[in-house]
Amino acid sequence: MNPDDIRFLRLALGLGRRGLGRTWPNPAVGCVIVKDGRILGRGTTGLGGRPHAERVALEQAGAASEGATAYVSLEPCAHHGRTPPCTDAIIAARIARVVVAIGDPDPRVSGRGFAALREAGIAVEIGQCAAEARYDLGGFLSRMTRGRPEVTLKLATSFDGRIATASGHSQWITGPQARRWVHAARARHDAVMVGAGTARADDPSLTVRDMGATHQPVRVVVSRRLDVPLMSALARSAKEVPVWMCHGPDADAALVDAWKGLGAEMVPCGLSGRQLDMGSVLNELGRRGLTRVLCEGGGALAASLLSEGLVDRMAGITAGFAMGAEGLPGIGALGLDRLDGASRFELVEEAALGEDILHVWVAGRPAEGL
Amino acid sequence: MNPDDIRFLRLALGLGRRGLGRTWPNPAVGCVIVKDGRILGRGTTGLGGRPHAERVALEQAGAASEGATAYVSLEPCAHHGRTPPCTDAIIAARIARVVVAIGDPDPRVSGRGFAALREAGIAVEIGQCAAEARYDLGGFLSRMTRGRPEVTLKLATSFDGRIATASGHSQWITGPQARRWVHAARARHDAVMVGAGTARADDPSLTVRDMGATHQPVRVVVSRRLDVPLMSALARSAKEVPVWMCHGPDADAALVDAWKGLGAEMVPCGLSGRQLDMGSVLNELGRRGLTRVLCEGGGALAASLLSEGLVDRMAGITAGFAMGAEGLPGIGALGLDRLDGASRFELVEEAALGEDILHVWVAGRPAEGL
Repeated sequence: MNPDDIRFLRLALGLGRRGLGRTWPNPAVGCVIVKDGRILGRGTTGLGGRPHAERVALEQAGAASEGATAYVSLEPCAHHGRTPPCTDAIIAARIARVVVAIGDPDPRVSGRGFAALREAGIAVEIGQCAAEARYDLGGFLSRMTRGRPEVTLKLATSFDGRIATASGHSQWITGPQARRWVHAARARHDAVMVGAGTARADDPSLTVRDMGATHQPVRVVVSRRLDVPLMSALARSAKEVPVWMCHGPDADAALVDAWKGLGAEMVPCGLSGRQLDMGSVLNELGRRGLTRVLCEGGGALAASLLSEGLVDRMAGITAGFAMGAEGLPGIGALGLDRLDGASRFELVEEAALGEDILHVWVAGRPAEGL
Repeated sequence: MNPDDIRFLRLALGLGRRGLGRTWPNPAVGCVIVKDGRILGRGTTGLGGRPHAERVALEQAGAASEGATAYVSLEPCAHHGRTPPCTDAIIAARIARVVVAIGDPDPRVSGRGFAALREAGIAVEIGQCAAEARYDLGGFLSRMTRGRPEVTLKLATSFDGRIATASGHSQWITGPQARRWVHAARARHDAVMVGAGTARADDPSLTVRDMGATHQPVRVVVSRRLDVPLMSALARSAKEVPVWMCHGPDADAALVDAWKGLGAEMVPCGLSGRQLDMGSVLNELGRRGLTRVLCEGGGALAASLLSEGLVDRMAGITAGFAMGAEGLPGIGALGLDRLDGASRFELVEEAALGEDILHVWVAGRPAEGL
């Protein structure tokens, strides 16, 4: 493959990333139509997953698509869903060649998209920028292959890993640029998730603010007994921005009704011992279409996810001051006895964020694309 | 000042940094002699502080020094110490111009070096690259102006700020590249310092290994009651590599004798309440000539230093796994109630170190040069 192909495919991937957090349950795909080195059309999957990126790009290119190359981050769909197959549109536009980063594990698509294109005499090339595409589309791939969303654990701590003083004081550990990064991260996720303790202690709204965002992530609260105040910021805003309450089978029926009345979506989940089973919670979220979940704490929820191997990425923001051992730990008890038993994550990004530092890590066993 | 001047002065600073950890109690200075754009001599302060960088560079340049410019990171000395003044050597070499980053706060030098040169008709320019020089020479400046060495706190932790599992398991939190960085950092410091708890728990040797190092930092142990095993690695090697035991006035006299017999230098320090007064400890270390101390823990010693405002730099190494709340905290109790009471450090460096991440921070109120 020549360098131009890689350049255009990267461009398609970049367009796809623009849709992250806004296309669930569909993947955030990007597409570029190119002929003779000129870009004729660009597409990103639309809000809520439609229109597909290929259709947007083809429409832009119009009749000029004939003989052009389409660069797409993910295998085009070949099935009649709520829209007709993208392969039909590509064939109808007389595209000569399709360059795709990775195949789609969706059983309705998997391999069939490529087959349909090839049957129509279109050249298909697959596999460049595959690792990058798998990283970008990890949430969609996770839901398809594991039935659950990809989980990113965000932890903003002092230099010594604390998230609040002993008296619960936590404003502000990090500076304005780090907080801005958190809002942008929320916008790139389908949902933001917290435990009941954090919802009670911080009364957060968990919305995307000051980013010019036109779309808000779902706010997911994990609370076996629904013990979050009905007058909390989350409860009061549930009619404007979705609130999903993940609760146990033993939650008080009156509380379930009250939350429903407030506009929350109720997500009954299974138990594991005396706690909510996080595998069940994530499966329920996946079943409802979520592909990318940003967990913002607290320590107990983070520990549950980590100890069950359900964290795919960790995003740490570290501030330049020490809080001391009395401070609240960012991650609860894990029962880890020896270090060789720990699951190691791989560093993929580090950067200064104003006065703080950001470090992003991925688990060794991410969801696989095809 | 023209760009060449800055380039040569930076080169002098770089040469000076080569001496860090090896020149105490003297500053690690660098000097470059340049004429017509050609470098005639380069010098770094020698092991143990002599010869001075200016003399090394002038000797290399020889008779060609006449009319040349000398670039020096620190004001040349003007007093008869254990060597004759560098200003005499510069004047004798008929140097035409001297470009210096910062003045020397040593009362025997301060301003007199510049005056002696100017009296001899040499042009003197001061102040370029001053912030850089103050950073490099911070240890020397600290000892001169505050009577104590500069203290860097090193903390290698899990993602959630832990230094060992509940059962004390700590090998290895970080990977080989991070450990190599630590050895290089030890080599750049005059001394490595630990508390008694760490000396007991880890039985560390604290030496520089696998770096081709020909010089070892002093190992400083802070232990009010000298409660470190007499058969520990530190004790057994005290005759080969210096061990300084900082102890309280109430340490057992037989233990003092035993450590002396093992070859350790005893450093009696004052108490503050029931603990060693860290200000007194650092003053004693400064009095004995140390300018740069790397504190490698444990949590109690780190907390004492931090709460007394005695930490000048923090070097964090964070690994990509979570240890959980039962793990040992890297920094002990600080009694911090509100976050606006915390002393914030400024991020000066962040980098991937193999599988881990390094982040270096400096205190807001470093020692000042002149």
